[in-house]
Order: sequence, then structure tokens, then C-alpha cells
Amino acid sequence: MAKLKIGAKAIVYPNPVVLIGAQVDGRPNYCLVGDCALAGVRWPLVMVSLHEEHWTTRGVLTERAFSVNIPSFDLLEAVDACGQVSGREVDKSSLFTTFYGEMETVPLIAECPVVLECRVVGEILREKRHVFLGEVVQAHIEERFLVGPPGRRVVAGLAELDPILYGSDDRYCRAGDPVAASGTPGAKLVATLRARRESLTDPGRGRGS
Amino acid sequence: MAKLKIGAKAIVYPNPVVLIGAQVDGRPNYCLVGDCALAGVRWPLVMVSLHEEHWTTRGVLTERAFSVNIPSFDLLEAVDACGQVSGREVDKSSLFTTFYGEMETVPLIAECPVVLECRVVGEILREKRHVFLGEVVQAHIEERFLVGPPGRRVVAGLAELDPILYGSDDRYCRAGDPVAASGTPGAKLVATLRARRESLTDPGRGRGS
Repeated sequence: MAKLKIGAKAIVYPNPVVLIGAQVDGRPNYCLVGDCALAGVRWPLVMVSLHEEHWTTRGVLTERAFSVNIPSFDLLEAVDACGQVSGREVDKSSLFTTFYGEMETVPLIAECPVVLECRVVGEILREKRHVFLGEVVQAHIEERFLVGPPGRRVVAGLAELDPILYGSDDRYCRAGDPVAASGTPGAKLVATLRARRESLTDPGRGRGS
Repeated sequence: MAKLKIGAKAIVYPNPVVLIGAQVDGRPNYCLVGDCALAGVRWPLVMVSLHEEHWTTRGVLTERAFSVNIPSFDLLEAVDACGQVSGREVDKSSLFTTFYGEMETVPLIAECPVVLECRVVGEILREKRHVFLGEVVQAHIEERFLVGPPGRRVVAGLAELDPILYGSDDRYCRAGDPVAASGTPGAKLVATLRARRESLTDPGRGRGS
């Protein structure tokens, strides 16, 4: 467990591979990022960090809105291509089929199984990075990825959605099969922690009372 | 590709499983989140969203600093337990071995292969969610996860680091083996896009001049 200090380096993994969409100069553009995550569920929030030089950033700043498009692995060729060139250089909208939802200026990718329309509700600018906090206005999902009985359908797991993962070694990989449900592997340990607390706060129990 | 609208729902996947650490009332505490991502590499930034009711949030707000601890799959039992109980309820510091690095008030987890010490450099508060932007002060990594020749060592891939992934179906899974290097799958498509642009902007080329 001994560690080396390697300086001020940002390492977080796995990185989700998502395409951030925005209307730039009246044209849809998409940008490949790994700098995106959930930021809230009950109040539906997502956060994304975009470099100020990304062509897409220009659109987000103007429209105060963006889309999060989550590709599946079968889109790897187009997704990887999208990450290699800038919309400043070529028209990337031909890589995907664009459609629009509730918000007229938020382009969405038809080929992605899950897409989110977001409006910007918060922002931090730091060292050429714009961190945008987006509130989800509408989520769109392919029906085959909603599973469970009618009326109680939920979003499918990673094995079905087959997202693209990205590592610090600049390589893409798939998600493996599910191993355990949340709350299961640690259940016994939680019981032990709680019992320890009870024996501390209620000494009577420890003496059989 | 036809999609259903499912309302204002935040869905981003895969979620990285990380433990956010902070000193709360003088004691280390760790909080399991999936709401964390890279926010910059050249300038090393990470972003995390914490609910205001998390015990750890209290420490981050007081100390203006936090740690990002990335567990490997063999820590699943303790990691899952950490996500089931609050530091308000039990002392979770016993789940892991704590050490300190450059910053005296940022607890780090010895069992995690990668840990980052961060200071808060930006913040958004929205709907009970604190989005903290952290600048990495120091990264620590187990030496066995630095690969490559001396002097040019880089961080290992997902298959070696074996992080815990989390899906929208509340299940944990592993990362699979690497499939392709960034820049490879889309190379041909990029060449096609560029050629199309050239034939548009330099019509002479198309006529053999």
C-alpha cells in the first residue's frame, strides 16, 4: 500500500465517454469528453468541464444549454473520430443524426441510447476550464433500455447499455457483467459497525440488560 | 433509435465509485459517491457533487479541502459498507487505514491504489447540492500501477487498476479488458472528414491542380 507522490496530477477513473452537444453559430456540434458526471438525482443535475477552446464551449456559453449524449460501444468509430477533430476545423454534425427535443437550441444524437437536454444553472471558470452545472430538462431513452414490469420500469444496467469507458492509459474498454447489488457486499460490515456503536452508546445492552 | 421521453431525470454512466475524504470535527470521514469526475488535466482539476446532508460535506466546507480515494474491486465490502451508513451515525474511519500527505486536514485511504489531495478552488450551491471544484495538490499512487520504462512511466489501465463501476441499476461491475487506443478506431473517418473539408475549401485540388 506504500505510495509514490507523483505531483499535482488529476487522475479519476473510469471516465465515462460522453458527447456534449450544443448549437454553435446555428449548427449542431458535439464534443467528446470524459469530464462529466452526475451531480444530483432527486434534483436532476449533471456537471461537465469544458476547455474554453472547445468549439462546443462557445455554443454552451451563448445558448446557456447543452446536451449529454451517452454512446454505446457500437458507436466507437464515430465517437473516437469526434474526439480527434474540432468543429472549428470540420463539420462534425455529419457523424451523427441530430434531432431536437424540448429545447430548440440543444442538438441531440439519435444513435445514442440515452440523451439529456440540460440548461445551465451554475458555472465556475478556472484556468481556462468552464465547469457547467446543468439541470436536466428532459431525458430521452430507447425503450429497449427500460427494464422491469410495466409501471415500474427502470433504466437497464451497464452490461445492456454497453457504454464506452476510458482509462488514464488513453484506452477504451467495455463494462463487465454486474457483480453485486449496492448494499449487499457490505451488509455484514454495516451490522458490525452499528453493533459497535450500540455497545458504546448503550452499555446496558453489553451487560445483557 | 426512437426514444421515450422519461422526464427530468439525470442519467450518466458509468459512475466511478470513489470515496471522498474530509476531516469532520477533527476526525477522518469518508463518503461513497459516484458524482465525481476529472475537470482538467494540464491544470489538474477534479469536480465532485456532495449533498448538503452528507457528513463529509461539513468537513469540506470547514477545511476547504478534500481527498478523492479511488478503490479497487478487492475493497468492495468496505466501500459498499461506507456507502450504507453516515459518519453522523457511526465512526467510519475504522473501515480503512487513514494517512496524511501534504495537507494536514485531508485524510487519505492507504488501501486505495490512487488518492488525490485537493483544495477547493470553486463552488456552486444548487438545490442542496454543493459542487466543489478541487485543484489537485498532490497525487499518490502505488508504484505497481505506474507502468512503462523508467523516466516515462504512466498510470496503468483500467484492467490493472480494477476500479469499481456503478450503473443506473444500482449494481457494481468491473471494467473489461482494453479494446482500442484513443485515436485508432476513428482514424479513417477523421481522414474522410478532412478530405471532404479540403475539397470544399480548395476546389482546385478536386480538379487536379
